[in-house]
Amino acid sequence: MRGLYVGRFQPFHKGHERVVDDIMDDVDEVVVAVGSAQKSHTLRNPFTAGERVSMITKALEDRDETVYAIPVEDLNRNAVWTTHVRSMCPPFETVYSNNPLIVRLFEEDDVEVRECVLFERDRFSGRVIRERMRDGGDWRALVPDEVEKVVDEVDGVRRLRDLDADDY
Amino acid sequence: MRGLYVGRFQPFHKGHERVVDDIMDDVDEVVVAVGSAQKSHTLRNPFTAGERVSMITKALEDRDETVYAIPVEDLNRNAVWTTHVRSMCPPFETVYSNNPLIVRLFEEDDVEVRECVLFERDRFSGRVIRERMRDGGDWRALVPDEVEKVVDEVDGVRRLRDLDADDY
Amino acid sequence: MRGLYVGRFQPFHKGHERVVDDIMDDVDEVVVAVGSAQKSHTLRNPFTAGERVSMITKALEDRDETVYAIPVEDLNRNAVWTTHVRSMCPPFETVYSNNPLIVRLFEEDDVEVRECVLFERDRFSGRVIRERMRDGGDWRALVPDEVEKVVDEVDGVRRLRDLDADDY
Amino acid sequence: MRGLYVGRFQPFHKGHERVVDDIMDDVDEVVVAVGSAQKSHTLRNPFTAGERVSMITKALEDRDETVYAIPVEDLNRNAVWTTHVRSMCPPFETVYSNNPLIVRLFEEDDVEVRECVLFERDRFSGRVIRERMRDGGDWRALVPDEVEKVVDEVDGVRRLRDLDADDY
Amino acid sequence: MRGLYVGRFQPFHKGHERVVDDIMDDVDEVVVAVGSAQKSHTLRNPFTAGERVSMITKALEDRDETVYAIPVEDLNRNAVWTTHVRSMCPPFETVYSNNPLIVRLFEEDDVEVRECVLFERDRFSGRVIRERMRDGGDWRALVPDEVEKVVDEVDGVRRLRDLDADDY
Amino acid sequence: MRGLYVGRFQPFHKGHERVVDDIMDDVDEVVVAVGSAQKSHTLRNPFTAGERVSMITKALEDRDETVYAIPVEDLNRNAVWTTHVRSMCPPFETVYSNNPLIVRLFEEDDVEVRECVLFERDRFSGRVIRERMRDGGDWRALVPDEVEKVVDEVDGVRRLRDLDADDY
Repeated sequence: MRGLYVGRFQPFHKGHERVVDDIMDDVDEVVVAVGSAQKSHTLRNPFTAGERVSMITKALEDRDETVYAIPVEDLNRNAVWTTHVRSMCPPFETVYSNNPLIVRLFEEDDVEVRECVLFERDRFSGRVIRERMRDGGDWRALVPDEVEKVVDEVDGVRRLRDLDADDY
Repeated sequence: MRGLYVGRFQPFHKGHERVVDDIMDDVDEVVVAVGSAQKSHTLRNPFTAGERVSMITKALEDRDETVYAIPVEDLNRNAVWTTHVRSMCPPFETVYSNNPLIVRLFEEDDVEVRECVLFERDRFSGRVIRERMRDGGDWRALVPDEVEKVVDEVDGVRRLRDLDADDY
Repeated sequence: MRGLYVGRFQPFHKGHERVVDDIMDDVDEVVVAVGSAQKSHTLRNPFTAGERVSMITKALEDRDETVYAIPVEDLNRNAVWTTHVRSMCPPFETVYSNNPLIVRLFEEDDVEVRECVLFERDRFSGRVIRERMRDGGDWRALVPDEVEKVVDEVDGVRRLRDLDADDY
Repeated sequence: MRGLYVGRFQPFHKGHERVVDDIMDDVDEVVVAVGSAQKSHTLRNPFTAGERVSMITKALEDRDETVYAIPVEDLNRNAVWTTHVRSMCPPFETVYSNNPLIVRLFEEDDVEVRECVLFERDRFSGRVIRERMRDGGDWRALVPDEVEKVVDEVDGVRRLRDLDADDY
Repeated sequence: MRGLYVGRFQPFHKGHERVVDDIMDDVDEVVVAVGSAQKSHTLRNPFTAGERVSMITKALEDRDETVYAIPVEDLNRNAVWTTHVRSMCPPFETVYSNNPLIVRLFEEDDVEVRECVLFERDRFSGRVIRERMRDGGDWRALVPDEVEKVVDEVDGVRRLRDLDADDY
Repeated sequence: MRGLYVGRFQPFHKGHERVVDDIMDDVDEVVVAVGSAQKSHTLRNPFTAGERVSMITKALEDRDETVYAIPVEDLNRNAVWTTHVRSMCPPFETVYSNNPLIVRLFEEDDVEVRECVLFERDRFSGRVIRERMRDGGDWRALVPDEVEKVVDEVDGVRRLRDLDADDY
């Protein structure tokens, strides 16, 4: 059985990692759909899909179960979004999400959705991590070592700071 | 070091598999970019990106090296295509291709391209396999066992035959 | 003579219905262009184009005049928008709108635009109705019976409430 | 019960009209989806969606049953096409088509598809009618009177002839 | 008064140059719209919009009249194409073209179109020049010196030959 | 040597003009890329690309150096944006910008970026000018005479005021 986990993963952090491990207790393989794949270089979406695929694959490569990290571009048409995701990913039976829109869309599509309890949500949050990157806070403790490495390789902290003035 | 192998993989066959194995002799990890990801259900592109990702991942999952199977949608703008591929895939140093357009585009982008010698090209060819599927010929011998299984699961042969009348 | 009435109709309400009736006093046939047709499942645009076409057609089917309910997708290019609308709709001579952008665009295109006086605008408003749906207020009094029925059939109130957490 | 009939209707002819009448024997309301809505002014797709909606509505306006003529733009993604059609049209239970791709896509989507027997297919054919328009043959006998009127109003025959040199 | 001259200019040749000079006899300024701007690196469209703008500007820079070379991307919607061109270009009163589709579209848009007599059409033709580039024939005599220079700078002949195998 | 100057130029004002003159001290030719070319008729982007090209070309036509005013549409994919700009414009060696995103994107693309000191930024600002147009303030002193003329020809002040109610 395969489970789908959808997110933007800007960046992939320890909270996401914990969710994947929980999903792995239920299913044999996990499809991680990297949403808004075409977005990058903004304060809210700093990393490219390729960078996010690297983060996810590296962070999870010691797991026994197969993980598929699949970039999925936005279509900007909610009514066809679940079908679009299904066309881009290996088949899955269950969806794991806490996002109300995603839950609703898959429910209207008669796909089983399970709530995934987020681990220390206030702390392990993409927004918090991006803010710490910009402000010089400690973001490194919040992401897996492999993600830290990817962020450093692409000089991600400087990228975020350079963009800082732009989004307002 | 990472190598990129681009194709449509309609379907992934033993010729492709052989190329991936040759690339693995050169590099540590292989990124397989599944091109024209948004296309499916035509005689020339019968399988969805998700189905093609399944084929590739399953056929190569016993290899020691990491394989990334990444759907890449067409932008229909050749001048930005290599940059688009790079934004969707983990970073790579070398490209493997025999397609003249792909070779040319990556060369203009100053990326190293290596010719990959196709194994028995006339036999192991997507076009030949699709024709055999439609005509009742023996396509099974031309694809890895795992691909055969994916094709059967999605009832791929019947799909191709149903579409047969339409492309003309 | 044919008149055009453009809106998003999220949902179609009694204020819209009154405008259509007023337009029917001027013209023989009314084209109701359902704008942002590709949008749905958001707090601001909960209903699909198909659901909105159902609402409009059902609410107006007892009128003697012909009504065309036509979904029109956004092109996100204001400069060609009026031409796009004209290519999707039966020909019309007069446009009815209170939206400043629509008025301006059709005036630059030398199409006659007539102000349509909105009936009790504060009460009959898509925003008010969507808020009442979410908050448990009385939205039913503000829409034609046929619209109420469509909303119930697609479980629209629950859809809006499920989405509520997401737009912020 | 509602039935869906999909076509390009370039132009709507007596063969289409006969199919709609047959569908009306089965269902209470007919949704006529005007495909490739964004195309016009080519030899194969001479008429705009708006012109085609006019043809269909006028040709069928004396029928007792409700007909919805709905422009549907191409997404160029077969895997999401049926979902796209459903988002743009009022809900339908049965699809009527002879096109192998459409039949296949709706069958994969678990929608019931019924074969619609085309009336004198060689004679009542969009291609034949467009050729006659260009070559000066008798196309008028092949379309309903109301369609003839729409074609004349937009000077459709001259449009086709003007475009004749271009498609080759 | 301003005139519009639309083409793909793959590449800009002496036949085009002659047409521009004829147009300059009629009008004060010439807008040269570089169509299919997003296309490049194919046998039929080898040069980018930027390369084509360079060719046109350089070839015409000694003329007294102002020339605007404006890239215009395809919208793939003929019904809005003239409006799209007008939104991207400085205002013009007259269009010069021999292309039946362009003539037809501007005539339906009530813009004056004048036939521009092509100078030795069989010889000065983009298709002929591209074929000569691929086959080693004398293309240099058919283009202005400045165009020859741009083609050489981007190694255009080798680009075309590299792409040769691909389009079939 | 050629320099690139990117902006939205809503409208082109004396601050922009001063930057172009400074760039002309460094380079032989200036490419002015008119960004968000597809946008117009909003409070933030009132003018079409064609109107902006007119403003720029007219305001700079007495300069000795060649100026290319090139509309560039948004792709909404930051990762390929610089490549897109390069495909639409004549080749350039240096980029002039103060926008953090543009600086960052070209730096990641290994293109030299030079800071261009904005002349009296608080005064010569698109936002300030658009506000003055709406509020009846003196915008004319802030733009070159040729720009004033273009704005008047398209009745730009009235356009902005008509749109005023809409963006909120």
